[in-house]
Amino acid sequence: MVRWTFIAFALALLAWLPGSAAAQTDPLPSWNDGKTKQSLVEFVTRVITPGGKDFVLEPERIAVFDNDGTLWAEQPIYFQLAFALDRVKALAPQHPEWKSKEPFASLLKGDVKGALSGGEPAILQIVMATHAGITTEEFERTVHDWIATAKHPKTGRLYTEMVYQPMLELLRYLRANGFKTFIVSGGGIDFMRVFSEQVYGIPPEQVIGSSGKLKFELRDGKPVLVKLAEIDFIGDKAGKPVGIQRNIGRRPVLAFGNSDGDLQMLQWTAAGSGTRFMGLVHHTDAAREWAYDRQSSIGRLDRALDEAKAKGWTRVDMKRDWKVVFPFAGQ
Amino acid sequence: MVRWTFIAFALALLAWLPGSAAAQTDPLPSWNDGKTKQSLVEFVTRVITPGGKDFVLEPERIAVFDNDGTLWAEQPIYFQLAFALDRVKALAPQHPEWKSKEPFASLLKGDVKGALSGGEPAILQIVMATHAGITTEEFERTVHDWIATAKHPKTGRLYTEMVYQPMLELLRYLRANGFKTFIVSGGGIDFMRVFSEQVYGIPPEQVIGSSGKLKFELRDGKPVLVKLAEIDFIGDKAGKPVGIQRNIGRRPVLAFGNSDGDLQMLQWTAAGSGTRFMGLVHHTDAAREWAYDRQSSIGRLDRALDEAKAKGWTRVDMKRDWKVVFPFAGQ
Repeated sequence: MVRWTFIAFALALLAWLPGSAAAQTDPLPSWNDGKTKQSLVEFVTRVITPGGKDFVLEPERIAVFDNDGTLWAEQPIYFQLAFALDRVKALAPQHPEWKSKEPFASLLKGDVKGALSGGEPAILQIVMATHAGITTEEFERTVHDWIATAKHPKTGRLYTEMVYQPMLELLRYLRANGFKTFIVSGGGIDFMRVFSEQVYGIPPEQVIGSSGKLKFELRDGKPVLVKLAEIDFIGDKAGKPVGIQRNIGRRPVLAFGNSDGDLQMLQWTAAGSGTRFMGLVHHTDAAREWAYDRQSSIGRLDRALDEAKAKGWTRVDMKRDWKVVFPFAGQ
Repeated sequence: MVRWTFIAFALALLAWLPGSAAAQTDPLPSWNDGKTKQSLVEFVTRVITPGGKDFVLEPERIAVFDNDGTLWAEQPIYFQLAFALDRVKALAPQHPEWKSKEPFASLLKGDVKGALSGGEPAILQIVMATHAGITTEEFERTVHDWIATAKHPKTGRLYTEMVYQPMLELLRYLRANGFKTFIVSGGGIDFMRVFSEQVYGIPPEQVIGSSGKLKFELRDGKPVLVKLAEIDFIGDKAGKPVGIQRNIGRRPVLAFGNSDGDLQMLQWTAAGSGTRFMGLVHHTDAAREWAYDRQSSIGRLDRALDEAKAKGWTRVDMKRDWKVVFPFAGQ
């Protein structure tokens, strides 16, 4: 009896040890077999093998991921922009002046294309009107309520369901091997943090993104942080390595993006010493997702695609490399 | 034989489980027994006890610490300022104009007091002249070389030895109980990150501090981040809760400071729901360290001391509560 007690005890304890069971099964079941999947597994194996020339100490296993188009979809418009448009409609009764003021006037008439025809300044106006002038806590609640109910116009799914199953598996696989996973996005930091932990397993302190300035205030003795209508940081393009330095302070060993906005992050990652992994999600699947690259206004992939080819970075061909795209497709 | 193999195996596995041995011994041996130490242990116990009304999920166990005067000493001048003064001397041959330009002229004549008499603008000039115009990698190397050799003027010890042994134990005790420890300092983020991991066990991504703007550049095809002579963020006073939001995005459950510069961080922490721990290190020990508070120009503790008393925050009396101050004192 005593012997079996100890066998059971030892087995129970074994179950606590990380990776012991996972090593037996495919950690990336939604990736088709082929050179892309192989390159990921080989990279991780090299990085975690003690004594090997590419071994990386655990605290230095920093992996960074763009969000829009890399971890979740970004068509037909960035999901955060969909949130902002919905907020304009919700806030319109408090802003009668919007009826005669662009880009709000077009938007409230249902003409999204017209509203966005003003380009970046129009988008900025919409973002500031919907993301500023409230406390961080009020904003979090607003995003929380929206993300729990708003539906994607094409699939009718929650936006948090429009995440890429193969990338979720990659995030988990990296973390199971001692990597620390970060989001480095041009999207709003306070927006993404509301769902990043639940959806990606990435805690708020590992989310980097664009932000507005904040103001600390005591309101009736209670401290609040007010979101101001003033840009603090844009986490796109050259802002990505800057954001990595600001919030991480260590160069990543793996970086994944999908557009020219990720080029500098990939360059910065590639320039470190030792082994590195630079990946691009290439949207090639019009049937299961969308197909776009050099000509797209959203998620344009042009210069980064050329540089990936020239430098041998990994291009994930969505159509060829992914067995499933979205989690719901497999259900 | 088989039975003993399993006993040994089970015991070996047990050793892997966190906290099993540590629970037997005093986790805070450099703290004198008394209400301060007791309040720390009781707080941690409440936070980690599942089912208890004060239980906090592990990802939410965020603990933030000021650095200067809280984790290491700050007298007779902030250590980073000592670094900057040394750098002015080292860089003087490349700046002949400094011989006739304040605050550099006084400094180069050995008149530190005269150089600093210009107050914040003078200090800012010194900081910008020594912290900007170089890449982040060059700056890291410079700090690394300095911190490995420069000695404190009073003790003759390395600056990294001027850390508080009781606080090192507290950091370890918190981490052993699932807390994530952060530095939230008015000091320079790129300066502290060079030694934070080795000295405090706090990785660069968990260091928050003041910073200058950064510029991404390709130099002969190699990407660099150049430190610009332009302030990006001041992580002191109201900047502390802002920095916490920027880099963590979650309200701490424990905050430790030592001066009025930490007041807003303590207020922000205190205003969260559920149990919280707000601590102030009070420098009361002129014999083993320094004694200063309301009248000090460095690390002034006045308003925060009043608020701590009014609100029942924990005041650590260095003389009364700490068995040893610096690690070397116990050797």
